[in-house]
Amino acid sequence: MTGAPDRFDSPALIDHHCHSVLAGPADAAAFGALLTEGATPSWADPFDSALGLSVRRWCAPVLDLPPHAPASDYLARRAELGPAEVTRRLLTASGTTALFVDTGFRSSELLGLAELGTAAGAPAFEVLRLETVAEQVAAGGVGPAQYPDSVAAAVASRARTAIACKSVLAYRHGFDVDPARPTDTEVRAAAGRWLRGRSGPLDDPVLLRHVLWCGVDTGLPLQLHTGFGDPDEDLHRANPILLTGFCRATAATGVAVMLLHCYPYHREAAWLAHVFGHVHVDVGLAATYVGPRASVLLAEVLEIAPFGKVLYSSDAFGLAELYHLAALRFRRAVQDLLDGWRRAGEAAEPDVHRITAMIAADNAYRVYGPGRV
Amino acid sequence: MTGAPDRFDSPALIDHHCHSVLAGPADAAAFGALLTEGATPSWADPFDSALGLSVRRWCAPVLDLPPHAPASDYLARRAELGPAEVTRRLLTASGTTALFVDTGFRSSELLGLAELGTAAGAPAFEVLRLETVAEQVAAGGVGPAQYPDSVAAAVASRARTAIACKSVLAYRHGFDVDPARPTDTEVRAAAGRWLRGRSGPLDDPVLLRHVLWCGVDTGLPLQLHTGFGDPDEDLHRANPILLTGFCRATAATGVAVMLLHCYPYHREAAWLAHVFGHVHVDVGLAATYVGPRASVLLAEVLEIAPFGKVLYSSDAFGLAELYHLAALRFRRAVQDLLDGWRRAGEAAEPDVHRITAMIAADNAYRVYGPGRV
Amino acid sequence: MTGAPDRFDSPALIDHHCHSVLAGPADAAAFGALLTEGATPSWADPFDSALGLSVRRWCAPVLDLPPHAPASDYLARRAELGPAEVTRRLLTASGTTALFVDTGFRSSELLGLAELGTAAGAPAFEVLRLETVAEQVAAGGVGPAQYPDSVAAAVASRARTAIACKSVLAYRHGFDVDPARPTDTEVRAAAGRWLRGRSGPLDDPVLLRHVLWCGVDTGLPLQLHTGFGDPDEDLHRANPILLTGFCRATAATGVAVMLLHCYPYHREAAWLAHVFGHVHVDVGLAATYVGPRASVLLAEVLEIAPFGKVLYSSDAFGLAELYHLAALRFRRAVQDLLDGWRRAGEAAEPDVHRITAMIAADNAYRVYGPGRV
Repeated sequence: MTGAPDRFDSPALIDHHCHSVLAGPADAAAFGALLTEGATPSWADPFDSALGLSVRRWCAPVLDLPPHAPASDYLARRAELGPAEVTRRLLTASGTTALFVDTGFRSSELLGLAELGTAAGAPAFEVLRLETVAEQVAAGGVGPAQYPDSVAAAVASRARTAIACKSVLAYRHGFDVDPARPTDTEVRAAAGRWLRGRSGPLDDPVLLRHVLWCGVDTGLPLQLHTGFGDPDEDLHRANPILLTGFCRATAATGVAVMLLHCYPYHREAAWLAHVFGHVHVDVGLAATYVGPRASVLLAEVLEIAPFGKVLYSSDAFGLAELYHLAALRFRRAVQDLLDGWRRAGEAAEPDVHRITAMIAADNAYRVYGPGRV
Repeated sequence: MTGAPDRFDSPALIDHHCHSVLAGPADAAAFGALLTEGATPSWADPFDSALGLSVRRWCAPVLDLPPHAPASDYLARRAELGPAEVTRRLLTASGTTALFVDTGFRSSELLGLAELGTAAGAPAFEVLRLETVAEQVAAGGVGPAQYPDSVAAAVASRARTAIACKSVLAYRHGFDVDPARPTDTEVRAAAGRWLRGRSGPLDDPVLLRHVLWCGVDTGLPLQLHTGFGDPDEDLHRANPILLTGFCRATAATGVAVMLLHCYPYHREAAWLAHVFGHVHVDVGLAATYVGPRASVLLAEVLEIAPFGKVLYSSDAFGLAELYHLAALRFRRAVQDLLDGWRRAGEAAEPDVHRITAMIAADNAYRVYGPGRV
Repeated sequence: MTGAPDRFDSPALIDHHCHSVLAGPADAAAFGALLTEGATPSWADPFDSALGLSVRRWCAPVLDLPPHAPASDYLARRAELGPAEVTRRLLTASGTTALFVDTGFRSSELLGLAELGTAAGAPAFEVLRLETVAEQVAAGGVGPAQYPDSVAAAVASRARTAIACKSVLAYRHGFDVDPARPTDTEVRAAAGRWLRGRSGPLDDPVLLRHVLWCGVDTGLPLQLHTGFGDPDEDLHRANPILLTGFCRATAATGVAVMLLHCYPYHREAAWLAHVFGHVHVDVGLAATYVGPRASVLLAEVLEIAPFGKVLYSSDAFGLAELYHLAALRFRRAVQDLLDGWRRAGEAAEPDVHRITAMIAADNAYRVYGPGRV
């Protein structure tokens, strides 16, 4: 990594939730569209943002440009190096030890798991997007009567090679649903309706709850998109606090619930991680976007979240820059916060090292399983 | 301005939402009542607040008193100078380049647009308060059948000389309404009910939606009061995130949606500005009240709000002090945040100057229109 | 107090809401369970938290251990000294001038008021938990017809020796209830249902509202648990902003409404304190848990809360450590914030001292009554 020295002590960094990188090149429009969660066109230039400044400051040197290079220079140099070299440079600069990759969204445009792992110099594991499995079962021609068992079987089968399951209930409906597992009768009735009129993504609340509980049944850690995301969601209906009932309902299952992103509701998410033994939290995605403010986000989460419940993720999608920036912001945030505590006499140096390692990798290693990662 | 040197580089500062100044003097009770959004009487002295300290610190020198002058000295000196001189001093101290003024609230107590502009040494433009137009049409004796067209015509006519429209739906009902334009049949039925029993401000949700969409039809930027305000509103029902559906519904109209104040929901408002191309945001009013914490509020908004979507407003009402303090806090907040980024190596100096100018005036100039401002 | 010098100028510190200390010893499991609001078992060690680090840093020296002593050393030394000595040391270290104690929760495990006062070297006053009174009346064998008057009489009688009333409506139902006083007919009907099936704590919303208004009728300050607490509550339904209607309904009663804890909704609580003359706020409990971040919480509350409306509480329960840490964090938070304003020229030294004294004790003294405290 070019730039300021990195004083993070633990080299291990597990990215417990990301996507893969674009396989091909990105022109200015495509690059800009991936630099925002927003709809386009917009009245604002995506480079004029905390994230845009971060790309010019921290990624430019990785591509041999001076810090703060203009966006046009950056895009020209990026095109000149080509996608493979850009990806290789930025992913290795991220220093990530392992990547857990959601393979269920726009995967045809992205590098496969093996290619991503090679580019990053780190193993890549599959995170199984539950709604995509249900949609694939539906596309395969299942009837309403067979729907519950067929989806359950497909999830169970696909989970054998996955590191985690993931739900995008936040996007498809919002968390304002009954948290309980629906009965097979309810599922069959809902499947009858949805399969008949099916023209888009799975958005029936009963079927969304059904596949979510199929995920619980796998015993794998269950990741949930919460908070910050694109305008397909209602942000306030993706507030993780609305999962309180689901956290209660899953407390006795032994399954780890992993709340992703959470911003700007990360203090509420931290409360869930505080009071429910099996709930974990990260501020991925947001920490990349907010640039220098990442340390504030981490500080807000660590106010009441137990140190053993906070993890690192990038939620990077498409642009190799996002993996590098996520790792850089996370490392600096941990450093700012914990080393600040050490300097203020609030924490001893060995504790700082230990807590840093927990959040960066050890918590993920424990949750997702020794022997798996 | 007396006090600490002002290192803000761009002199241009467009206040895209304010009210006018009291025409007459204010005794201690009247001054105190304008120094809070709260009901009176209160168990607390309004001077014992971040805003009260700010008046004593930053306005006292403008009236030739030492910083931190006692409240009683301040009020005595204010009375001695008289309202015209106090207004002239504090408004010119604010260094505002242009003022966009909501003329629809308690306007009989306040200076007219021309007088305000003269006192400030800057042009003042009218912001048209939509609900007031509808109430004026009702007061003029319209029947239910004519109500939809009469209100629409009045809004269109008044808009010809206005710089923007403004809605106080937050106060009159809250944002928990259907965001869609109501049909004429619905409006006529609602008008029949409201006109019959009319005894106070417009508060029927159908009629509020109707006049809001009349505002959209003008094509002018549409300002919405959101968040922080007085106890006539339910704060949580004024959360801008509840406008998500309205943002979706207006995305294709070409109208700029301007979310005012937003505190303490400004991170949620920033998400709306991030994901919807036409949505803009400010932290006016709150930034004045919170005093030294204004830079934190701005930092929180700029976490994910694009720099091209953030504007300055004072939302000052009645007291000339509020214009000066709003401008002072805003300039310092921008300085603290952006110059902090420069010092930390996160942003280059030309970017800092450019972004500062965007937020202070250029975004407003672009949204409200060259040729108008 | 051992540790960093305490530069807090006012020695007076009124803890306007706490519980009592465990009467007996606490083994590692019991200690850990009291170091979190969370359910056990958890995937995380309670010592690995901002609060856990605080105990090791700031309480260890009070027990003659070096700062940052390992948790096992701390627990061993604690056992060696015995509960009486540990309690005496940590409570006197807290430097609290008076304690207002909720006596209605798990009181059989805790020191009585007199014992607590002796250990703290400070007078202890009773805070009357309203729901407990209603449950005691029910346990005494009242019928539905007598229920309204019997509960009202019991509250009035018990209130004669109490400093305040307290409601845990947040735990028993949430604030999403009609804020109005229920009629006697409604109360009798609800009492009929609840008394028949009674098997646990009072959770009927009509009866909860009834006893809440019995509390209002006493004229004593009314404390309400809001925000941060254990998983028996739904955090978002304990958001104090949902008390807006209740604040309106009580505005004319002359009763002070005291919003306890509030985190992470303390900015919304501060708005209530800003706009309603009789509403007060604290960030107790949370300020202890978040450790070095307590000054941020206080800063967030003082953004718009009038200085005359903010109080100190520990909400400490069970562990003597929590009284010491609450006082220490509060003193440092006030110091960080107000002395920061002084250094930045935002406030004069006499104002800093005066505001400090207000928040630490004078506001409590004024609200709860000279002649009582």
